[in-house]
Amino acid sequence: MDTKITLTEKEIPTSWYNIQADLPEPLPPLRHPGTKEPTRLPPPLFARALDEQEFSQERYIDIPEEVQEIYKLWRPTPLYRAYNLEKALDTPAHIYYKYEGVSPAGSHKPNTAVAQAYYAKKEGCKRIATETGAGQWGSAISLACQFFGLECKVYMVKISYQQKPYRRIMMETWGASVVASPSEDTEIGRKLLKEDPGCTGSLGIAISEACEDAFSHDDTLYSLGSVVNHVLLHQTVVGQEAMKQLEKIDVYPDIIIGCIGGGSNFAGVLLPFVKDKIAGKKPNLQIICVEPEACPTVTKGPYTWDFGDVAGMAPIVLMYTLGHSFVPPPVHAGGLRYHGMAPIICHLHKLGFIEARAEYQIPTFQAAVQFARTEGIIPAPEPAHAIKVVIDEALKCKQSGEKKNILLALSGHGHFDLGAYEQYLSGKLEDYEYPEEKVKEALAQLPQVPG
Amino acid sequence: MDTKITLTEKEIPTSWYNIQADLPEPLPPLRHPGTKEPTRLPPPLFARALDEQEFSQERYIDIPEEVQEIYKLWRPTPLYRAYNLEKALDTPAHIYYKYEGVSPAGSHKPNTAVAQAYYAKKEGCKRIATETGAGQWGSAISLACQFFGLECKVYMVKISYQQKPYRRIMMETWGASVVASPSEDTEIGRKLLKEDPGCTGSLGIAISEACEDAFSHDDTLYSLGSVVNHVLLHQTVVGQEAMKQLEKIDVYPDIIIGCIGGGSNFAGVLLPFVKDKIAGKKPNLQIICVEPEACPTVTKGPYTWDFGDVAGMAPIVLMYTLGHSFVPPPVHAGGLRYHGMAPIICHLHKLGFIEARAEYQIPTFQAAVQFARTEGIIPAPEPAHAIKVVIDEALKCKQSGEKKNILLALSGHGHFDLGAYEQYLSGKLEDYEYPEEKVKEALAQLPQVPG
Repeated sequence: MDTKITLTEKEIPTSWYNIQADLPEPLPPLRHPGTKEPTRLPPPLFARALDEQEFSQERYIDIPEEVQEIYKLWRPTPLYRAYNLEKALDTPAHIYYKYEGVSPAGSHKPNTAVAQAYYAKKEGCKRIATETGAGQWGSAISLACQFFGLECKVYMVKISYQQKPYRRIMMETWGASVVASPSEDTEIGRKLLKEDPGCTGSLGIAISEACEDAFSHDDTLYSLGSVVNHVLLHQTVVGQEAMKQLEKIDVYPDIIIGCIGGGSNFAGVLLPFVKDKIAGKKPNLQIICVEPEACPTVTKGPYTWDFGDVAGMAPIVLMYTLGHSFVPPPVHAGGLRYHGMAPIICHLHKLGFIEARAEYQIPTFQAAVQFARTEGIIPAPEPAHAIKVVIDEALKCKQSGEKKNILLALSGHGHFDLGAYEQYLSGKLEDYEYPEEKVKEALAQLPQVPG
Repeated sequence: MDTKITLTEKEIPTSWYNIQADLPEPLPPLRHPGTKEPTRLPPPLFARALDEQEFSQERYIDIPEEVQEIYKLWRPTPLYRAYNLEKALDTPAHIYYKYEGVSPAGSHKPNTAVAQAYYAKKEGCKRIATETGAGQWGSAISLACQFFGLECKVYMVKISYQQKPYRRIMMETWGASVVASPSEDTEIGRKLLKEDPGCTGSLGIAISEACEDAFSHDDTLYSLGSVVNHVLLHQTVVGQEAMKQLEKIDVYPDIIIGCIGGGSNFAGVLLPFVKDKIAGKKPNLQIICVEPEACPTVTKGPYTWDFGDVAGMAPIVLMYTLGHSFVPPPVHAGGLRYHGMAPIICHLHKLGFIEARAEYQIPTFQAAVQFARTEGIIPAPEPAHAIKVVIDEALKCKQSGEKKNILLALSGHGHFDLGAYEQYLSGKLEDYEYPEEKVKEALAQLPQVPG
């Protein structure tokens, strides 16, 4: 077969796949952070269409034409056969990777950013406020707002703002207004800066600032880049495409592997496939989620009720969590440093349809460099965790002689992560053990939910 | 039509197109830097196959299968219709762009790097030595060497080595050994460092070091990323693909626009089209080469004999030149800061088949930002010069009402040039007038060639 399988623009999916229609047990409700009662998404913050999608039980939800048009700037994305990596590993396994790094922002994030900007515009919103850590989400939403003529305000965690100027400039090039958080632009920001002028910020603080901004401006909505159901829904264009691409060569994967931080990238790939497993059509399909050993939410966290955000203002969800006040060690895979996990991913894991593994960052970068030297693409540190497990599984096939088909979710490139590669290549990269004590402390602060 | 026109892997060209077969007058010879007599490429430095290609009169030269296989990692590259830009300009013109930024190195450079590494390997070479300025060429050849199991030594101009660490790390990730030039690794490097330990290097010095390295190691060849005929030949895969893509929608361009530094990127696009103009089939086809006002080789330089390199050790060629000792102002488009120009480009210009324009960098970045905000892709500063002229021509069409088809050669992304975007966005970008006096001085040092 060819090195990559491409689709035509006519083959881009025209609807998103909603796993909620096919779950054997429904998702647990969201609960209000104050009353603890079942709740919708906080209404003044989110577009109505997104709130509907969040709880919809429809199997397919039409992708608006305007969103489809913008998807065409980078979709369909290529599905590669990793011939060179297979050869280097001397494995009988066939390795395929679905590559989202071809989007202008360099990752899967624009798939949902464009949809969110579209609905915001349609519902009369003029402006979006959001937070960003390392900048992947911020750049995706900046790009999306530009396409729909929306203003975009990004609260970027101050330490990242200072240390990662390229992502900030990318957002500004796409017209966004970016401030270091905590900022003077919100009440909570001013309060924090007064208490501690040197505060370097956190994702929790940035979320609080973005929410306050959206609350206090009538024309402004808030926007989330992962975790919630509607974001995972939008990402299913990725998996639907991958399925079509594999069908063209008459392949169904034996193993699907991806990294999970909030869960949206890998959910986008796995949901259209896990449907077959739930339906009993593919009982042997193995789906492996990979997280960092430094933040092993699904592998080590309890399945319990916790706040989705650090500040305790977001809805409470039933999920695997390390505690909303847990601050993970500074691994380079910034996108995987989240205390919780998408409820859909957690639910599927609890029901036994998917499994999870945790990996250290040094062997992860070793795998990333092997991938770069064989396949050319330099992966972002987040999907590099998945590459580590792909290589492990391919080497198992070498031992057993099995010719398994492995599908890798390669969510983005590492052009803005080369500092991490330098640390690895020069032997200066540190690894982090699972911070058990810190997790215990954080788990002691879980909210009490009756029942 | 679709937003982008994709080809299948079967449609990747299987031969390179050699313009020399169709020139109405043959190219002038290369001349030996010492004897001034017609010469081949310096034999111990280049693979024999490349020297043959340099002077070949065959119209098509087969692309080796091994090279075709590697091309498939990023080829065929997409051809886009710039619907969003057209809409923003309110122009009746149709704008198409052929995008080479999807290669792992982010530009067109791997198209020739892979071919050069292949021939080097085939002829028993174990190692390639080369120079790089900002790092585009260095990363392409590092990647290519990795594919063929060759060692790669890159002499990187010291000031770039210090200021642009990401490109260096990219090369190292692909397994290359990179040193700041001048280095302790060559005689000329040691000599220069002894005279001036703080020397920040130049492309001329880096070339000299790489050549000395290749001369002094039996297993090592030297490699060039632009200017010479065989490099332009390899880049014709780009234009051949673009032609096929446009044929699919029954379009032949009225204007083709690209940037020129050494000339290889734009030659790759224009050569398969200029053939039709030479043959009289497309007399009205307009081909516009764009260079920086700070280094306006073709627009302001004389057509005369000059050394291809700064040190005066490379062959003497007939070309437009600002003098081999001319050091252009530090515009951000590092790839366009070359004193001379590919002989093929110069020859075609002299014969009246192509024209040239020079642009300032501030309006160039303005055009680049407009492109990024409409089409999503953040262009490298080099092709941004061509975007400036595309916008000018599209606006002329708006005035005249003409529905011209414009084809843009978009050679790469600007992920490693965001520092330049920041300067532009913050109003700190400087512009540079044509340095007339410095050019006069440099032109006084041209070599004397009889006849």
